[in-house]
Amino acid sequence: MAVVPLLADQEAGAEALAVFDDIRARRRTDHVNNFWRALAHDPALLRATWDRVQAVMAPGALDPLVKEMIYIAVSTANGCDYCVHSHTAAARAKGMSPAQHAELLSVIALAAQTNALATALSVPVDDRFTL
Amino acid sequence: MAVVPLLADQEAGAEALAVFDDIRARRRTDHVNNFWRALAHDPALLRATWDRVQAVMAPGALDPLVKEMIYIAVSTANGCDYCVHSHTAAARAKGMSPAQHAELLSVIALAAQTNALATALSVPVDDRFTL
Amino acid sequence: MAVVPLLADQEAGAEALAVFDDIRARRRTDHVNNFWRALAHDPALLRATWDRVQAVMAPGALDPLVKEMIYIAVSTANGCDYCVHSHTAAARAKGMSPAQHAELLSVIALAAQTNALATALSVPVDDRFTL
Amino acid sequence: MAVVPLLADQEAGAEALAVFDDIRARRRTDHVNNFWRALAHDPALLRATWDRVQAVMAPGALDPLVKEMIYIAVSTANGCDYCVHSHTAAARAKGMSPAQHAELLSVIALAAQTNALATALSVPVDDRFTL
Amino acid sequence: MAVVPLLADQEAGAEALAVFDDIRARRRTDHVNNFWRALAHDPALLRATWDRVQAVMAPGALDPLVKEMIYIAVSTANGCDYCVHSHTAAARAKGMSPAQHAELLSVIALAAQTNALATALSVPVDDRFTL
Amino acid sequence: MAVVPLLADQEAGAEALAVFDDIRARRRTDHVNNFWRALAHDPALLRATWDRVQAVMAPGALDPLVKEMIYIAVSTANGCDYCVHSHTAAARAKGMSPAQHAELLSVIALAAQTNALATALSVPVDDRFTL
Repeated sequence: MAVVPLLADQEAGAEALAVFDDIRARRRTDHVNNFWRALAHDPALLRATWDRVQAVMAPGALDPLVKEMIYIAVSTANGCDYCVHSHTAAARAKGMSPAQHAELLSVIALAAQTNALATALSVPVDDRFTL
Repeated sequence: MAVVPLLADQEAGAEALAVFDDIRARRRTDHVNNFWRALAHDPALLRATWDRVQAVMAPGALDPLVKEMIYIAVSTANGCDYCVHSHTAAARAKGMSPAQHAELLSVIALAAQTNALATALSVPVDDRFTL
Repeated sequence: MAVVPLLADQEAGAEALAVFDDIRARRRTDHVNNFWRALAHDPALLRATWDRVQAVMAPGALDPLVKEMIYIAVSTANGCDYCVHSHTAAARAKGMSPAQHAELLSVIALAAQTNALATALSVPVDDRFTL
Repeated sequence: MAVVPLLADQEAGAEALAVFDDIRARRRTDHVNNFWRALAHDPALLRATWDRVQAVMAPGALDPLVKEMIYIAVSTANGCDYCVHSHTAAARAKGMSPAQHAELLSVIALAAQTNALATALSVPVDDRFTL
Repeated sequence: MAVVPLLADQEAGAEALAVFDDIRARRRTDHVNNFWRALAHDPALLRATWDRVQAVMAPGALDPLVKEMIYIAVSTANGCDYCVHSHTAAARAKGMSPAQHAELLSVIALAAQTNALATALSVPVDDRFTL
Repeated sequence: MAVVPLLADQEAGAEALAVFDDIRARRRTDHVNNFWRALAHDPALLRATWDRVQAVMAPGALDPLVKEMIYIAVSTANGCDYCVHSHTAAARAKGMSPAQHAELLSVIALAAQTNALATALSVPVDDRFTL
């Protein structure tokens, strides 16, 4: 259970409702995720977070699917179960294949492993990796 | 300083040296990173890690550059400074542009932020995100 | 489910029961949290932990509510769902308003974001920040 | 060393320079931290991050000093050495006394300890902590 | 719920089934954990992970029970609830006593606490700890 | 550099000096680690931490060397470079062989890897692992 109630449309204020409407319009769905309903208690934080997601996850130098996979990678390392679920769903909606998911998992696991080794050995950065 | 000495070629055993040679041949460079020189104290771990890196980072359903960016994302979330440096260098060597690097950083920062919010609010996973 | 049974009063030994009694007396409640019931398998650890909580969380140079908010911040960054719940409840019991909670969440999210950026860029500490 | 060069004023573009000027004006100092100089490679990210810091860290329902202490707590749990240094300096500039710093450290250490215990025991959240 | 279906024997391909059989034979049980059933979507990752577990967790310079306790320690610090449960069960199956479990928890909690203090104070490594 | 000065003997107060003396006496050395010199600004925290270390790391149901290796495991997962160095030195002083160190590293790396996989897949805990 969330530490705040998830706000239904009729419980949200006008400012939060405007964000909900924007979410529905841009995502072409009636569904507003629990994450946004929990944030709706602070309409300013809800708005700032949603606007930032729109700005950062839009197509640019990186493909939107690549961005979702990077999101899954960070969410896994940070142990955020909600985020792993929501961004795996988002990545699939953007076309992630089972083979791509499998390779993503393999890279995440490999990185976790060598991160641990480099830290446990306190390996100094090679001169050629610094500017 | 590392918690073990970094082994120079002449200090490494035959098994470790064979991995060093493999690194040089596959990467077409004379340079063997500090990471591998620190691991060389345990030739079996060195071999297993290097072989796993080769298997996972090879081209497949995901582009090698995408894999390096996922690696940077995990290494950042895990706070591994060595890994951030070595994989940023590797991503650049594979063609990561400054614009791509900038977008990668923006996604990593956004994910860290919403991970924290979802955790601090303990948002329950939406039914539609589960199978 | 916990990895150890939560000990009811009648299952706890005399040493653990004495801590339970102390918890009830100081908190003016009949309720003993699951955390303490799980720790009761090791009465020495239960005692040491409870005594440390009393010593650290008491009023001092920092207000008890501020201490609870710091606790929530650490628990979020460490991904401890139990601790987020219990210390958010404790902060509310000590008077945390919804507006304070909202600002706390905003600071936690901002810090997570800039932590990630500083780490991904490996920014060197400014001379003026060192002694 | 940073994974990107720290941009001096004469190397920064007009957009980044405008943020540097804003930092100098609001903080009443000539010094622009390394963090901002590293971010200056992506003026949009620099601007978004600086604006967010201004919005979140301003006085509100929480005191600015309390916000800095929360920032230190998150930065510690995330292992961000740069952030620990810069926000400890900021907290001192906002009046944090040695006694307050000492209590902050005690709370952070206690939270890290009980976070680990709750996780290692997988303690279920008490019903009364959920809504 | 997992982000992929857990594969029952009749849903797993021949390659995954061969690993399931190996798990049953070596562990002398009919039970194949959810972890392996989730990994079975990528038979190559399943095989590589299972083989690595066999190689690393076998008796050697460290006792298998000690290895399981180290596993619990890492899993706790990484906040992996599944892993805490599965490796606590494994440690008990290898003879971990309640007293050993209690001491393990005390060391984990102490380390988390002093890790936080050393990080929040950015304590420089003593010369005598480097080579 | 530490965020507080490391206190030399002549700068430390009587309470902190008493702990330094205790450290020297119990460890049979003249050297007092930087960690304790940084903590000496808060003699109460210094005393509480040192006393806890003595209580927890003493021989008991687990061997002192095993405890040091568990400490290294937690410190690695938490990314505490100081702690990795100091506890690797302590483990060696208590007899950790290179072969034991190598196996410790292998278990830490394996755990980090499977932790990431279990989290990225959100594997549900098997019924048989719960009580």
